[in-house]
Amino acid sequence: MTQTAAHNPPIQRHLPVDQQLAILRRGVVDLVSEDDLKRKLQRSLATGQPLRVKLGADPTRPDLHLGHAVIFRKMRQFQDLGHKVIMLIGDFTATIGDPTGKSKTRPPLSLEQARANAQSYLEQCQAILRQDEEVLEIRYNSEWLESMGYKDIISLAAKYTVARILERDDFSKRLSAGTPISMHELLYPLTQGYDSVALHADVELGGTDQLFNNLVGRGLQRDYDQEPQVVITLPLLVGLDGSEKMSKSLNNYIGITDEPHTMFAGLMKVPDHLLDNYFTLLTDLPREQIDTLLAGHPVEAHRVLAREVTAFFHPEADLDAALERFQSVAKGGIPENIPSIGVPAAEANEQGQYPVARLVVLAGLELSNGSARRLIQNKGLKVNGEVYLDPYGTLELLSEGLVIQKGKDKFVRVEKRE
Amino acid sequence: MTQTAAHNPPIQRHLPVDQQLAILRRGVVDLVSEDDLKRKLQRSLATGQPLRVKLGADPTRPDLHLGHAVIFRKMRQFQDLGHKVIMLIGDFTATIGDPTGKSKTRPPLSLEQARANAQSYLEQCQAILRQDEEVLEIRYNSEWLESMGYKDIISLAAKYTVARILERDDFSKRLSAGTPISMHELLYPLTQGYDSVALHADVELGGTDQLFNNLVGRGLQRDYDQEPQVVITLPLLVGLDGSEKMSKSLNNYIGITDEPHTMFAGLMKVPDHLLDNYFTLLTDLPREQIDTLLAGHPVEAHRVLAREVTAFFHPEADLDAALERFQSVAKGGIPENIPSIGVPAAEANEQGQYPVARLVVLAGLELSNGSARRLIQNKGLKVNGEVYLDPYGTLELLSEGLVIQKGKDKFVRVEKRE
Repeated sequence: MTQTAAHNPPIQRHLPVDQQLAILRRGVVDLVSEDDLKRKLQRSLATGQPLRVKLGADPTRPDLHLGHAVIFRKMRQFQDLGHKVIMLIGDFTATIGDPTGKSKTRPPLSLEQARANAQSYLEQCQAILRQDEEVLEIRYNSEWLESMGYKDIISLAAKYTVARILERDDFSKRLSAGTPISMHELLYPLTQGYDSVALHADVELGGTDQLFNNLVGRGLQRDYDQEPQVVITLPLLVGLDGSEKMSKSLNNYIGITDEPHTMFAGLMKVPDHLLDNYFTLLTDLPREQIDTLLAGHPVEAHRVLAREVTAFFHPEADLDAALERFQSVAKGGIPENIPSIGVPAAEANEQGQYPVARLVVLAGLELSNGSARRLIQNKGLKVNGEVYLDPYGTLELLSEGLVIQKGKDKFVRVEKRE
Repeated sequence: MTQTAAHNPPIQRHLPVDQQLAILRRGVVDLVSEDDLKRKLQRSLATGQPLRVKLGADPTRPDLHLGHAVIFRKMRQFQDLGHKVIMLIGDFTATIGDPTGKSKTRPPLSLEQARANAQSYLEQCQAILRQDEEVLEIRYNSEWLESMGYKDIISLAAKYTVARILERDDFSKRLSAGTPISMHELLYPLTQGYDSVALHADVELGGTDQLFNNLVGRGLQRDYDQEPQVVITLPLLVGLDGSEKMSKSLNNYIGITDEPHTMFAGLMKVPDHLLDNYFTLLTDLPREQIDTLLAGHPVEAHRVLAREVTAFFHPEADLDAALERFQSVAKGGIPENIPSIGVPAAEANEQGQYPVARLVVLAGLELSNGSARRLIQNKGLKVNGEVYLDPYGTLELLSEGLVIQKGKDKFVRVEKRE
């Protein structure tokens, strides 16, 4: 997981502004404004003062996938040009959760939990971001939010009008549809914007869904007599299902920390119509080469994509082996070198048989017997290459063990522990 | 100014609920809800626990007039029935002022200034409210606002929806007219409402313009698992001009601390169509008596009104003298017993004459030479009973002095200081 030296070519400072712009513009959706960015880059070049490039990170959901990688790669490009990336961890905001208690996805965390999540988040980022202090700053919003009092919040709120906040697309839609918006939701964009003031950010990155919030930061900086930040948004990556944005809950994702062969196999399954997108957002291949690949056979294009992306995250991985394994699995075979677990005899029933759902859990393929049974009901489990259909079934464990398989590419050998 | 014993008849505890309601309902515009108030009064009677009756006081404008007295008299009625009145001083809110800097009428005060203003405010209230701790509690919102942090405010804001706040009449009008509303303005009703939570208020009083804000408090108490407060509003008193609400800046007011003869004269000038209103809101005369007075000669009704109200604020005053003085002034005469000032010789010009505008300022009738000249231009100044017309004119001060007169009823004798 940690960076190898090969991953860290020397930083290219002092690249002419036009060349920097060409790199930074790639794949971008919004750039507000290009003139401002140009001016900031020119000044940075003249003064030797790197730009401060902010990204807000929500430590409530620390599992990162290639959808997040799109933005981290842009951060990395800023680093490669000598600019300073600021990872802003919303630790204090995470301790608030959803005060209305309506959203189960935002339970309040303790500051310790939030920091622990942030640690895991930052570790995952190591696969992409340079780690040297010169180009990486890690900050927590508890630094300023914890000491903010009633008066500070009133002063902050006084700088923004209700009409401007309600312009946000989802707010105006909910308001006209009569769907309740809690008052505190209007305050979040303001505090998020205030983070940019506190950090003196020159640039803020985010997904297209963050455009409004990050423009609030740009506006607030002006109100606090700072130079307004440049707002750059990147597209939300569409997941392997070809239609929804990549997300863990939709199970259409490739994780940043996935094993090389899993990542490789995932990339081989990217829908053809998304290939251009993935190449543009997740590789550095020049435009002409991408065009040539897209004009050729899709399998070849997939192989190059899978190699490029996997090699970025796992520079030491054996990509030939990953390809072979993918091909063998694609043909329905069982790859060599799969993990194995030993099951204690105590797990057996009186007949010496093992409940299949329990084996799936012990193999780490599902978190509970219930979800294991649903997997079986949905025909998602194979045992020794055959689809297994009885959610309450039991199996004998012979000396050679069993291979259980979830979906197309997750294999675990299950053996009796001696 | 301080209370005399005559002013404080014994508290009438244990009055039956219906009798209490009859007193408390008098002159009220909104009562949300009468059932709740009835229930609270019943419980108070059963347990001997007085109701907690809140009034928010803004210490930025401490000059009180009869418009304020309408509400204070209602508070006093609660006291007379044994209930506890809570004067809530918005000292902390006053230190914020208007953070947008747009309103010159709300400059931020220091906490000391705010407390000093509050002191003057509370002293003026002594003319109306009982001062014994048993029925008077004085609180400051700095008690809870000063220690409120970001998290507390988010939790508070989460309890209210944007739609409910925007229902407030002026907000919805401004929003649809495109007139800017600053975000902090939406927070004020919430914090004002939170005051009721902090105080466990049973009842909140206010002008009709406070109905919405006080209903927010009622809603919030429910969200904080408290019994919701009863909201009572009283009409805004129309001033002596007969059309606008009484206010100092419109100069259509009678001050709570005005001298007996000034108050008396002011009340004699109440427009006829407001007599009913003034009787209902500012006296305890029974309905039948008011009706009889209104059916009779208006001058007689005015005399009774002036006597009743002046006697309430000045129980020791000589009301016959006040009436005589009013009549003499009404005929254009100069009353006896008017204040006099001595003007130092240094104020005279080389010809031994005194600039009239300067005399007006020295007499305390205007604050600056400029406003004194405007008074003269507007034909508002008399000297020895004659209208004086030259804003830059000068006068000799003979040994008997001069009487200068502003409007109908402000006289000062000006003499040379020996």
